[in-house]
Amino acid sequence: MALKTLKDALVEELEDILSAEQQITAALPLMMAKATHPELKAGFQLHLDQTKTQISRLGQALSALGHPPETSTTCEAMKGIIKEGQHIMSTQADPDVMDAMLIAAAQKVEHYEIASYGTVCTWAALLGQNEVKELLGQTLQEEKMTDEKLSTLAESVINADAVA
Amino acid sequence: MALKTLKDALVEELEDILSAEQQITAALPLMMAKATHPELKAGFQLHLDQTKTQISRLGQALSALGHPPETSTTCEAMKGIIKEGQHIMSTQADPDVMDAMLIAAAQKVEHYEIASYGTVCTWAALLGQNEVKELLGQTLQEEKMTDEKLSTLAESVINADAVA
Repeated sequence: MALKTLKDALVEELEDILSAEQQITAALPLMMAKATHPELKAGFQLHLDQTKTQISRLGQALSALGHPPETSTTCEAMKGIIKEGQHIMSTQADPDVMDAMLIAAAQKVEHYEIASYGTVCTWAALLGQNEVKELLGQTLQEEKMTDEKLSTLAESVINADAVA
Repeated sequence: MALKTLKDALVEELEDILSAEQQITAALPLMMAKATHPELKAGFQLHLDQTKTQISRLGQALSALGHPPETSTTCEAMKGIIKEGQHIMSTQADPDVMDAMLIAAAQKVEHYEIASYGTVCTWAALLGQNEVKELLGQTLQEEKMTDEKLSTLAESVINADAVA
């Protein structure tokens, strides 16, 4: 059996992230519908728009590596993160508390993506795959900015009533 | 049915992280055994030691909130992240490539924890639970440092042979 190379690992990781992004695309509209704070709703919509671009970049990266721009993998980690999000959305909570919990769930999604895109950028650089690194570096920056915005929102959406 | 308060959400999130840490405690020795690079092996051992302290802090935080220092929850997200890690460990790869993949898996663990501890620190601060914020803020800093060390290792463990 041939030993896995770093390039094989890179392709496998890209397919894993593509599956994660596809799952996020399905989950975000539900989170948007459940959110109350207008800034949070708008943030989820923006993230949904960005995710479509990010999926397109993953396809370009796979093509640049000589692979079809698709995935046959299911990202088990994202499946678990989204399962937790579904549990949260099924609970009865004050609207501010629900928003706080939705932000927490979204930050888990973001951090999974920050770790994954960080990995593929490092590996692409080591392999001299500069186009791939450049493309996915843009996504990595977007994910970090989304996470920071969510951190700021977390401190502003909760009013004194929810803390009672 | 009573609406969930932010304090209820905080307790639920602490129980989720406690389950995650327990799962990590079981997974780290396997990752350590599979790693080749001495610095990576040592890093996993250090993280295992830190995780025991972090579990103890979670127990203290739950006690401070009037709850038993235990969890009946299974963190589904960590279950998925570890399932991906098990898949990685079952593949045949060049030792440098295996180390790179183990680092990637460990960074997904770290980022899940960074998101979770970030959330509970924010919520504890909003609730005026300063002891809880202080305790878990220490863990948050440790997780961020571990992630940074792993990023540095990712660039140094892979030699030219693995990139071929």
